[in-house]
Amino acid sequence: MKVELLSTGTELLRGKNVDTNAAWLARQLGKAGLEVCHHQTVDDHFGRLVDSLKLAASRSDLLIMTGGLGPTEDDYTRAAAEEAFHRPLVYKASIWKAIETRFRKYKLKMASINKRQAWIPKGAALLPNPNGTAPGFLFRQDGVVFAALPGPPREMQPMFRDHVLPRIRTRADFAVWECFSYGLPEGTVDEIVNGIVGKRATYGLTVRIGQVNISIRAEGARRKQVLADLSRRVRIALGPCYMDAELHEVVVRELIARKTTLAVAESCTGGLIAHRLTEVPGVSEVLLESVVTYSNASKVKRLGVDPALIGEHGAVSEPVARAMARGVARTSGAQIGVAVTGIAGPGGGSGRKPVGLCYMAVGDRVESKVFSGDRSNVKERAAGYALNMLRLRLIGAEGNAAAAGPARKTVGVRPRR
Amino acid sequence: MKVELLSTGTELLRGKNVDTNAAWLARQLGKAGLEVCHHQTVDDHFGRLVDSLKLAASRSDLLIMTGGLGPTEDDYTRAAAEEAFHRPLVYKASIWKAIETRFRKYKLKMASINKRQAWIPKGAALLPNPNGTAPGFLFRQDGVVFAALPGPPREMQPMFRDHVLPRIRTRADFAVWECFSYGLPEGTVDEIVNGIVGKRATYGLTVRIGQVNISIRAEGARRKQVLADLSRRVRIALGPCYMDAELHEVVVRELIARKTTLAVAESCTGGLIAHRLTEVPGVSEVLLESVVTYSNASKVKRLGVDPALIGEHGAVSEPVARAMARGVARTSGAQIGVAVTGIAGPGGGSGRKPVGLCYMAVGDRVESKVFSGDRSNVKERAAGYALNMLRLRLIGAEGNAAAAGPARKTVGVRPRR
Repeated sequence: MKVELLSTGTELLRGKNVDTNAAWLARQLGKAGLEVCHHQTVDDHFGRLVDSLKLAASRSDLLIMTGGLGPTEDDYTRAAAEEAFHRPLVYKASIWKAIETRFRKYKLKMASINKRQAWIPKGAALLPNPNGTAPGFLFRQDGVVFAALPGPPREMQPMFRDHVLPRIRTRADFAVWECFSYGLPEGTVDEIVNGIVGKRATYGLTVRIGQVNISIRAEGARRKQVLADLSRRVRIALGPCYMDAELHEVVVRELIARKTTLAVAESCTGGLIAHRLTEVPGVSEVLLESVVTYSNASKVKRLGVDPALIGEHGAVSEPVARAMARGVARTSGAQIGVAVTGIAGPGGGSGRKPVGLCYMAVGDRVESKVFSGDRSNVKERAAGYALNMLRLRLIGAEGNAAAAGPARKTVGVRPRR
Repeated sequence: MKVELLSTGTELLRGKNVDTNAAWLARQLGKAGLEVCHHQTVDDHFGRLVDSLKLAASRSDLLIMTGGLGPTEDDYTRAAAEEAFHRPLVYKASIWKAIETRFRKYKLKMASINKRQAWIPKGAALLPNPNGTAPGFLFRQDGVVFAALPGPPREMQPMFRDHVLPRIRTRADFAVWECFSYGLPEGTVDEIVNGIVGKRATYGLTVRIGQVNISIRAEGARRKQVLADLSRRVRIALGPCYMDAELHEVVVRELIARKTTLAVAESCTGGLIAHRLTEVPGVSEVLLESVVTYSNASKVKRLGVDPALIGEHGAVSEPVARAMARGVARTSGAQIGVAVTGIAGPGGGSGRKPVGLCYMAVGDRVESKVFSGDRSNVKERAAGYALNMLRLRLIGAEGNAAAAGPARKTVGVRPRR
């Protein structure tokens, strides 16, 4: 079964909005064993929309469209479906009633243009929208299933999950195993996984600053045994770089499991380490506090760093990083102190201390790296590096050079985009 | 001139990667006066790629493709261009030499498959790639310009800017004005802008949690006068909600301009306010420190909050928020203290204090809201709300109810996706 996604919206083609609907739908469809072969994005233009729908219907079996269900003149999905599939639109009083109720509930002024949303193609199944005014619809014609969903993700996602997925035939004869790796370059992970997987399964890698997501997919009757064997071997081969969840999730889970309390002192990462840790529910059990000591005065006052140390070595230095980690642990009463000090740029660099130079401290251990990229990148890389040092310490693999990974992005052969 | 984008890469259709290249290219093309009408994404499948290229060449004038230039077997861009445009590939010794030099420089093992990257369509202009091995190429055929660029953004972006843009005819008879608004619902901003712009120009809105980006585009000989008039009227109509840059950039700029020092105490936002502020270069002049006081003990110890206050009102309460803001200002010596305390969820809520309840304090002023959405969302909304309160105070519009905006996402009429 070939699946095609169609996003409509001029704003998607002006570069203002990144289309996250397509990626989300592709992931859900992938989990259901279906693979997307095409994705089209078309601006709000009736003729081009009709052409795109016809093209999609001619080459794909399942077509999922997002957007264009609003009440305004440039919301063309209903009309384009009518034209492309030769299905007249019919007025549904029940839709209009639901819209009226919704407007009353939220005490909003009703606009008569909303009445346009009460028309759907004849014979189509109505897909309820508890989070907005526009209902979706779905019909089957000449062997092609067509579903039209609203553009806003909070309306689209529950509608797809609750009303589209149950209506399409998914595959069950496959299994997927996922893990993460931190600190190894993508090329190295690719070599390792490729060597293990061979022709027994397929796999994909996704990279996000330092972290590689590995996804292995097996088919056939023996898929579970195959995945069990492959995953065991990948785990072993990755060693301490292996993670079963994202870096910050693993760190919080390991802290909670060990009942180990943490405090963080951030300079150049500016709160990013704390922000990432506090994305995980339950972190309040173990994270006592985090201090962003941007000024030297606050390093001295909040963390008890010796001003002479800053004077002698500079705020961006190994001794100051260590003193910050010790200081935040001592003053907060946490069992582990983590600290980062560095030069995020674009200014502030010098010959001896270039932009990107960062010192990461976990307890008494300090490592330094020069990270490439812009300010935002340096912050991301330094925060990830420090969190990974903390993870390695928690799992008893502290100082593992391989798992700490290279400081600069690896350059060279990129086997895949 | 109709522009079409084509992204290739199976990983883009598995939902693992979000395609940011298309949005970036659309933005650059828009700035050059060109509008994208179509965007196709195709998996790494030779036949489908050829079909997509043919389709694009039949309906568009400028076709920009990203990805598929790597050295592996499923990198099909070169071969698909050969097939679709009937242009034989030719071997360029100069490309191979550049690849060899690059590998030597980074002391990487050379793979012979990289030799595939030395083949490009006959007569095509070579687009140098200083950031990777794969060069791009560009040719014109039957009135269609076709450019093939590598997938990794750090290779693609400079190549497009330095070698594609100078080769395509851009438009200069248009002008764009951009601004931001914080705190007003999208629908209200739309009404305001629509009423002012009328038929004299076109405009687009983009929303990102609380912030609306407004972009107005005028054409014709009088475009500058038109934009000057429209922008003046939009500025006036938006009042204190008007911003000429993103919220955190405005806040840092206003702090620096007023030589006002800041300290932040975050509970439920967990470092996000500090993280956003420290994305702006130069913030170290004014941000003395930020404290993430996740535990009650640290609220007492770091900020001097009276434990009796926490006992009486709870950590999530107006008096504690105010005490945190006062405390962080006093203990850091900053002129303004900002504090947030709330329940980010998913746990920790109660009937009287539901998940999403947050107190934001700027100096002595405290406001409370119940924010909807998941943990990540509540953090984002609370951080944005507090930053906007700070901005309003800095520009002398403190307590402006309209500009503070609604707590819950507005529901109802969505004129556009």
